[in-house]
Amino acid sequence: MKLRTLLFSTSLAVIAAQAVSADELREWAEETFKPLPSTIPALANNPVTPEKIDLGKALFFDPRMSASGVFSCNSCHNLATGGDDNMPVSIGHGWQKGPRNSPTVLNAVFNTAQFWDGRAPDLAEQAKGPVQAGVEMANTPDNVLATLNSMPQYQEWFKASFPEEEDPVTFDNFAKAIEAFEATLITPAPFDAWLNGDDNAMNADQLAGLELFMEKGCAACHNGVNLGGNGYYPFGLIEKPGADILPVGDKGRFAVTETVDDEYVFRASPLRNIDQTAPYFHSGLVWDLKVAVQIMGESQLGEDLSDEEADKIVAFLGTLTGTMPQVVYPVLPVETATTPRPTGEVQ
Amino acid sequence: MKLRTLLFSTSLAVIAAQAVSADELREWAEETFKPLPSTIPALANNPVTPEKIDLGKALFFDPRMSASGVFSCNSCHNLATGGDDNMPVSIGHGWQKGPRNSPTVLNAVFNTAQFWDGRAPDLAEQAKGPVQAGVEMANTPDNVLATLNSMPQYQEWFKASFPEEEDPVTFDNFAKAIEAFEATLITPAPFDAWLNGDDNAMNADQLAGLELFMEKGCAACHNGVNLGGNGYYPFGLIEKPGADILPVGDKGRFAVTETVDDEYVFRASPLRNIDQTAPYFHSGLVWDLKVAVQIMGESQLGEDLSDEEADKIVAFLGTLTGTMPQVVYPVLPVETATTPRPTGEVQ
Repeated sequence: MKLRTLLFSTSLAVIAAQAVSADELREWAEETFKPLPSTIPALANNPVTPEKIDLGKALFFDPRMSASGVFSCNSCHNLATGGDDNMPVSIGHGWQKGPRNSPTVLNAVFNTAQFWDGRAPDLAEQAKGPVQAGVEMANTPDNVLATLNSMPQYQEWFKASFPEEEDPVTFDNFAKAIEAFEATLITPAPFDAWLNGDDNAMNADQLAGLELFMEKGCAACHNGVNLGGNGYYPFGLIEKPGADILPVGDKGRFAVTETVDDEYVFRASPLRNIDQTAPYFHSGLVWDLKVAVQIMGESQLGEDLSDEEADKIVAFLGTLTGTMPQVVYPVLPVETATTPRPTGEVQ
Repeated sequence: MKLRTLLFSTSLAVIAAQAVSADELREWAEETFKPLPSTIPALANNPVTPEKIDLGKALFFDPRMSASGVFSCNSCHNLATGGDDNMPVSIGHGWQKGPRNSPTVLNAVFNTAQFWDGRAPDLAEQAKGPVQAGVEMANTPDNVLATLNSMPQYQEWFKASFPEEEDPVTFDNFAKAIEAFEATLITPAPFDAWLNGDDNAMNADQLAGLELFMEKGCAACHNGVNLGGNGYYPFGLIEKPGADILPVGDKGRFAVTETVDDEYVFRASPLRNIDQTAPYFHSGLVWDLKVAVQIMGESQLGEDLSDEEADKIVAFLGTLTGTMPQVVYPVLPVETATTPRPTGEVQ
């Protein structure tokens, strides 16, 4: 969503700043948000099959995809803790720190693009990043493929997942399988039930918070199925937060587009399960959701949200916390004599 | 098992070094080994309940039990990869290396004592070690309890698991819950089926390997339900291996008993799932199971096992690889404002 749309939405919010009825509220919400679908979404150029989901799950949990054997996708996108790692920035290979807070993998399939700066168009492309990042898993595509090819069980699983391919063990297919698994990580929440017509799914405070969320203009950036994850905006649209929250060295999407307009521009955070994924912002330096909401109010909307208002918005955000799909922990293929040995060495 | 018994068993093996019938082989095996029980074993002073197992599973998978938030029990005892971490020695807090190879947690409840030197009498006592070790999880009992008490969901789970206790959130109960979960990690294998009378559960090579395993004297130390884990023996009983396998600095059980007799004495490794848990020995420096078997032959029995003999023993050891229980990945309680923050700092 571009800035013009944002300003248009904000003025709509101002117009609507009087109390609305429950029906009006739902109608307004339906124009702004979308409930989670009841089925796994189709992926571009990547048909989702049970075999591919199972392979992707194995790869997602396999620490041997990292050079050291310490880190899997699940290390920083832990399905036990909201799909992220509860740290300001992740600790990776050689105990190095990553540059930005780890975003949740839950419902990430519905984001328009991946990473804080949107540099990956989809989850398959995203999955290739951390595996190779020196401060994360520090591996190479060649070494990943050598590892996979060393285990007959993985070869069979790739064959079953990509049955029409002659040589299915490729880095692209590695990423596609992970994408297929991640597409299953959908967490229907009380807000979805309410959007779908269940009046009892949200209480009065939560509904008041939703109304505030739309009225104040939060929904200008945080809208759609993931309440964010679908547009880029300057962090500090109205007022730049201090360097404790917005470190000067990280210019966000500027690094992707090299356009001055994109300095300090980031993808609006998707807000599903947000109360499970502290700390907040790309810098991961704010631990309290209410404080994060108030910072957003000031920096993006020029709104000095009262304690009461912020509490209600936080109550609404709680309705975005959904039910995790049941994930059976995988049993992974065993290494063979040709499996590359793990190394913790830092290059 | 003490040295006298060991020598006695070895001479029995020598007497029996002629071909035996299938029935005689099973009879002999039944005197030496025990199949896994079909139910979760009772634990001393720790009644196992479904609530306690679930709590223990949550704790086992919770990286917030470490100071950094990076490591859980499952990091080094990964249920996806044979209950260990496939590294010579584990990498822990601050990217430090641990002193010894991580043993599998699978079936560990049947070991007489825990750790390579047997310094913990049971799994509850064991669980307290890595959490506090500076090179592993680098946490303190106080910080673990502060973390647990900061999350109401954990308080409820402790209350449900220890219903008769006024103040159930204790470090002892933390360890007991983990022990209860770990007691469920039992992996029945083809060898158990064969011991229980299923003639088809093992093929001719595997049976020949079993016969060799007993004849040569391997079973003198590797016997009982876990084929090991129940006695202490000098590594290098007949011939000390080189420092590449037996580093001079690690004197094994000597550190526990301070008795000269215990220099370079270690607990005989339990052998269930051994083909899933390379690399081998407390130093973790041997990657090939056949090589490990041949080293054991030389150092412990003075036996120069031929390639064919070693292959058969490895074929037998494969029948000890069992079926993992299904483990549903937990959804953990969410942190609150009072949850201690993770720190990767090395003290």
